[in-house]
Amino acid sequence: MEPRVSLITLGVSDLARAVRFYRDGLGWAMSSVGGDGIAFFQLGGGLAFALWPRHLLVEDSRIGSDPGGFGGIALAYNVPERDEVDRVLAFVVKHGATILRPAEDAFWGGRSGYFADPDGHPWEVAWNPGFPMGPDGAVKVPT
Amino acid sequence: MEPRVSLITLGVSDLARAVRFYRDGLGWAMSSVGGDGIAFFQLGGGLAFALWPRHLLVEDSRIGSDPGGFGGIALAYNVPERDEVDRVLAFVVKHGATILRPAEDAFWGGRSGYFADPDGHPWEVAWNPGFPMGPDGAVKVPT
Repeated sequence: MEPRVSLITLGVSDLARAVRFYRDGLGWAMSSVGGDGIAFFQLGGGLAFALWPRHLLVEDSRIGSDPGGFGGIALAYNVPERDEVDRVLAFVVKHGATILRPAEDAFWGGRSGYFADPDGHPWEVAWNPGFPMGPDGAVKVPT
Repeated sequence: MEPRVSLITLGVSDLARAVRFYRDGLGWAMSSVGGDGIAFFQLGGGLAFALWPRHLLVEDSRIGSDPGGFGGIALAYNVPERDEVDRVLAFVVKHGATILRPAEDAFWGGRSGYFADPDGHPWEVAWNPGFPMGPDGAVKVPT
């Protein structure tokens, strides 16, 4: 298998609220496909992102049970400048996110904090000088 | 905020087992950084991927509580050919994944199935002619 993720789907309890956060709040352009029941977004690097009612994702994947809450997956939004971590956290709060952990300097030499989207999905906002970013936002993991 | 995800972190209960699955099983090249406590991988499209003990992810993110199990996030691995869905599902099972839903034709015109990695994280394997793939694996979401 090639090293890739094609699509990240977030199961949400209120699709309209999630769309307000990602489309209207963060400003991500939403695809015209999907109709009323699902929202798709083109992310950088040829990655797709979807918002879908959580019970439909449970049903479609046959995941079996859904205890609710955290499931052991976190997404990260890296930024090229140290101060941008704090600015992004302040920005998302204005649009309905909650801070899980305020920005702090990290033992690994960067700076990061975490917010939860309106469904509680955790996002880290990180400046990581060890993983340099290209002008297109691509992250370079050292070999 | 720009439309991007920089890093996907999967919380795992047994890091060595997870590394065996993703590095040795799927064949993804692991970064030399991170040491014994975390594993990083470069994915296509400038995306990074990490495996980290789940309790440390809970602690770092201040997520509060971890009920275990599914958390409402699914990843997808898209393939350019219909038959490849079945081949990928057969392949991952040989390396320790379990099938959540066998491949089936979808109402939206493609074909997909789901597997769970050794920690239960759900992955969809999908052929989606509506989201064409570039030669580099990039997915194009219709505008």
